[in-house]
Amino acid sequence: MTTGEVLERAGAAGEDKDYVQSLVRGLEVIRAFSQYKPRMTLSEVAQHTGLTRAAARRFLLTLVREGYAETDGKLFALRPKVLELGFAYLSSLPIWEIAQPVMRDVVNTLQESCSLSVLDGDDIVYVARVPTARVMTIGLSIGSRLPAFCSSMGRVLLAGLPPAELAVVYDRVRIEKRTPRTVATMVALKEAVENARRQGWALVDQELELGLRSIAVPVRNRRGEVLAALNVSTHEGRSSIEAMRTQFLPVLLDAAQRISAALPQ
Amino acid sequence: MTTGEVLERAGAAGEDKDYVQSLVRGLEVIRAFSQYKPRMTLSEVAQHTGLTRAAARRFLLTLVREGYAETDGKLFALRPKVLELGFAYLSSLPIWEIAQPVMRDVVNTLQESCSLSVLDGDDIVYVARVPTARVMTIGLSIGSRLPAFCSSMGRVLLAGLPPAELAVVYDRVRIEKRTPRTVATMVALKEAVENARRQGWALVDQELELGLRSIAVPVRNRRGEVLAALNVSTHEGRSSIEAMRTQFLPVLLDAAQRISAALPQ
Repeated sequence: MTTGEVLERAGAAGEDKDYVQSLVRGLEVIRAFSQYKPRMTLSEVAQHTGLTRAAARRFLLTLVREGYAETDGKLFALRPKVLELGFAYLSSLPIWEIAQPVMRDVVNTLQESCSLSVLDGDDIVYVARVPTARVMTIGLSIGSRLPAFCSSMGRVLLAGLPPAELAVVYDRVRIEKRTPRTVATMVALKEAVENARRQGWALVDQELELGLRSIAVPVRNRRGEVLAALNVSTHEGRSSIEAMRTQFLPVLLDAAQRISAALPQ
Repeated sequence: MTTGEVLERAGAAGEDKDYVQSLVRGLEVIRAFSQYKPRMTLSEVAQHTGLTRAAARRFLLTLVREGYAETDGKLFALRPKVLELGFAYLSSLPIWEIAQPVMRDVVNTLQESCSLSVLDGDDIVYVARVPTARVMTIGLSIGSRLPAFCSSMGRVLLAGLPPAELAVVYDRVRIEKRTPRTVATMVALKEAVENARRQGWALVDQELELGLRSIAVPVRNRRGEVLAALNVSTHEGRSSIEAMRTQFLPVLLDAAQRISAALPQ
């Protein structure tokens, strides 16, 4: 009996025979590691994932055996091989490689961090980021997620959705105030997204985090569909909203144009 | 009977009860997607992974259900959520975030691509890369692997290994000529690595690929241990070996210093 057959029976015994629970659990084990927890004991992994120690041990030993993780016998850590998982996706985005040098120019010009993100459900996910030495925030790197409704990139990505898809997001999205400035109502959110659609950019002033301001523009393919959002973020003490409109925006719009023009037909 | 128990029995029936085969197969499915195959049918995934269609289907549907993949019913593709797998590792490397702006300075100064890599067995794995618009090569991105023995970063990383670990690599490494210039013998390789150790940098001239030249330096932690290698690559038609020594090397050494100095104690 192969594992596949066994799983099929196990699944059948459970809810859904097409659901490979052990794969999902294994992925949870990989995701349990982070910059805050780069090395964990078996118990910590079990605790972090809600797995039994026995199950966590099986997954960890499998990851070690396959080169995805390493252990000194007590502590476990991930190995560079896991990069081959996430990058199968990244490398499949032509926009990613094309955007890098353009984003570097933006950072050189504005001396502020520049990021590229795509929509994933109600979140935006960073697919590229060029930080400045000054505002180095370990908290935000490729793969980071932020709620779309209160981020500048999220607003332009929502504005780029077909009405039907946008309606689905609106039905689902839960507005939670992250700062006193976060949009408080669906009406206000819809207005902000409409505004982003009309003007072709979005500026978010401390709705995500106090002190944080960002301005974003859409990156479109040849058919005019929004593929991603490009933004520059700054600290309210460093750049006025006016400066972001007059100095950041033209640079961002130009960068988005250059990326779009370089995209494969 | 839980899947875990089932797997345990399945494993026991097989070779190793601690080996979760379905996790490994699921990871293979994720890795099957690439920039060359961003979208695949069920049959293509099965073919690519050597899984049965039934098994491939189970893994794909599981990935879709968990948000790691999407499908239009015929074609499957990965979703941004897979980035959370590889980046659990990247974000756990303080050197990564610290190196970005420094590498950007290197590229601005030299107008050549700059990369950061770590050793993984006999390979180097790219953990950061700042390309120039000119030499944008989709082929090399974060997560890419290259043989350590014939790459400049590989040579400095090997040179940084404790003698015992280096000996293990020497026993295992298989020298294959990738160009007429690739080192041909173990003696020559050991000499090159020793040379890299003595001088503190390595220059590789078209041993990996004809036309490709690169020079690398080690990035050390406070204890002087080599954590990673930093390199600049160029085309032989663009920069002479002399220019790489006199112009590239000082910039690289300075960059490595800055990264080391910024690393947490």
